[in-house]
Amino acid sequence: MSKPSVAPISIVKVNLDGQITTNDLLAVEEPLEIRIGFGPKENREQRNISVTMRTPGNDFELALGFLFTEGIIENIHEIAQIKYCTELNNKQDNQNIVRVELHENITIDFSKLQRNFYTTSSCGVCGKASIDAIKTVCNIETKNNPFTANQSIILELPNKLRAQQNVFEYTGGLHACALFDLQGNLEILREDVGRHNALDKLIGAIVGSQNGTVSFQNKILLLSGRASFELIQKAAMAGIQIICAVGAPSSLAVQTAQEFGITLIGFLRENRFNIYSNPERIIIA
Amino acid sequence: MSKPSVAPISIVKVNLDGQITTNDLLAVEEPLEIRIGFGPKENREQRNISVTMRTPGNDFELALGFLFTEGIIENIHEIAQIKYCTELNNKQDNQNIVRVELHENITIDFSKLQRNFYTTSSCGVCGKASIDAIKTVCNIETKNNPFTANQSIILELPNKLRAQQNVFEYTGGLHACALFDLQGNLEILREDVGRHNALDKLIGAIVGSQNGTVSFQNKILLLSGRASFELIQKAAMAGIQIICAVGAPSSLAVQTAQEFGITLIGFLRENRFNIYSNPERIIIA
Repeated sequence: MSKPSVAPISIVKVNLDGQITTNDLLAVEEPLEIRIGFGPKENREQRNISVTMRTPGNDFELALGFLFTEGIIENIHEIAQIKYCTELNNKQDNQNIVRVELHENITIDFSKLQRNFYTTSSCGVCGKASIDAIKTVCNIETKNNPFTANQSIILELPNKLRAQQNVFEYTGGLHACALFDLQGNLEILREDVGRHNALDKLIGAIVGSQNGTVSFQNKILLLSGRASFELIQKAAMAGIQIICAVGAPSSLAVQTAQEFGITLIGFLRENRFNIYSNPERIIIA
Repeated sequence: MSKPSVAPISIVKVNLDGQITTNDLLAVEEPLEIRIGFGPKENREQRNISVTMRTPGNDFELALGFLFTEGIIENIHEIAQIKYCTELNNKQDNQNIVRVELHENITIDFSKLQRNFYTTSSCGVCGKASIDAIKTVCNIETKNNPFTANQSIILELPNKLRAQQNVFEYTGGLHACALFDLQGNLEILREDVGRHNALDKLIGAIVGSQNGTVSFQNKILLLSGRASFELIQKAAMAGIQIICAVGAPSSLAVQTAQEFGITLIGFLRENRFNIYSNPERIIIA
């Protein structure tokens, strides 16, 4: 039994006619600690990698996606086991720590784990340095995959996302991301109070389900909100080449998309969108 | 001259009639590194505290607000100087590092600086532990200040915020937060690609402008988006007692508000809102 994603609450609803006390649902926000176990059996080590505030659910995928998008693991075969850490006696909390056990022969470059790494390379702290740092860590190839997507397919994506956003429907409190094929079929959707967590869960689900080869080719990623650097960076790590956001992109999100040959679409609504980079992949009817 | 908050870009606008190439503006997202200098003159030390992706502008306030809401400093008198770090020769980047010089007699508890601190106290990783950790770090008093605000004033706040959101108007890409008095007069507004940065900028502006005593009593804080734990935690650090969010709160945001006696309002629209905690401060007409 995994922890619930929604929590009941009694609230006071106020409108111009007055107030009523009623029951409502909240999106749950709880910390998740990700730990990795590594090293030879006789000298096994454990290390705390990250604590993130997330909505419970798909926690193993979140851990897997986080380790993948940060460049710590390359595929599922490096992992021996993922489990909740139950060494604490407090039952309530034992689903807030995930331990990812790596195979004994896998070595970790802990310098990649420093959040600041992206921004403190030699030229100083700047957006360009952040982008360059991703390249160093990740060896992402700027692919020139000649696939295309149709305008009409793109325009339908937000409605398809909303139709499937279960927890959001009840709480209004979750970010979502979804992966579609080029015909606009929804393949996977994940929700979370943190937009980076939603994307890590989605990417982690793919990384975990594929037999060692991770491929996001010929897919379209849809983000329910704005497109920040962090989200584009994670998508770039996965090799996603078309990203659509319902909201606005930031300057560094656009620069990152340009640098990695990603088609970035923003302000995607029912009848319009803006293309910020690599428009040649979109066929306008 | 501070760095610009918006950046020009050429985009392809697509709608049902076809496409046009046009110029547009993006919200700038760039890393900001916060460093502190501390210790006696003969043995001065410098330490990197944080790197955050922010929209340039009000960078000193951001640094100040961050140090205050993390419990590192208590007031402006602990600070000798705030400046951009110009030791790098790269002129483009020298406004992405802020150095906060503390007075020689100020000592820092670096254990407070660990982001994980909030979530790894003795009972394990859980929401309650996160709240307890804030209390330990911050000595926030749960105040029982008997002031009230009127429903009609609350309902007007979102329009007042939008009317003043300059950068958002051009880019659609920024979060905002604003502080109002109980008559609904806007006192200060800050915008940023990161919602936590917008709030740190706002709090930092107040911390920097007041003569050593920081007071957010009898004020209303408005958040342009959802209310997460992190935002309520920062507001609690400042002693803010009425928080309104245009979007949904999370479960842990509500728990934190309850714990610190904060009135938390969500889904604030032109003619309605929900009260999640301490409704006695709101006078319903």
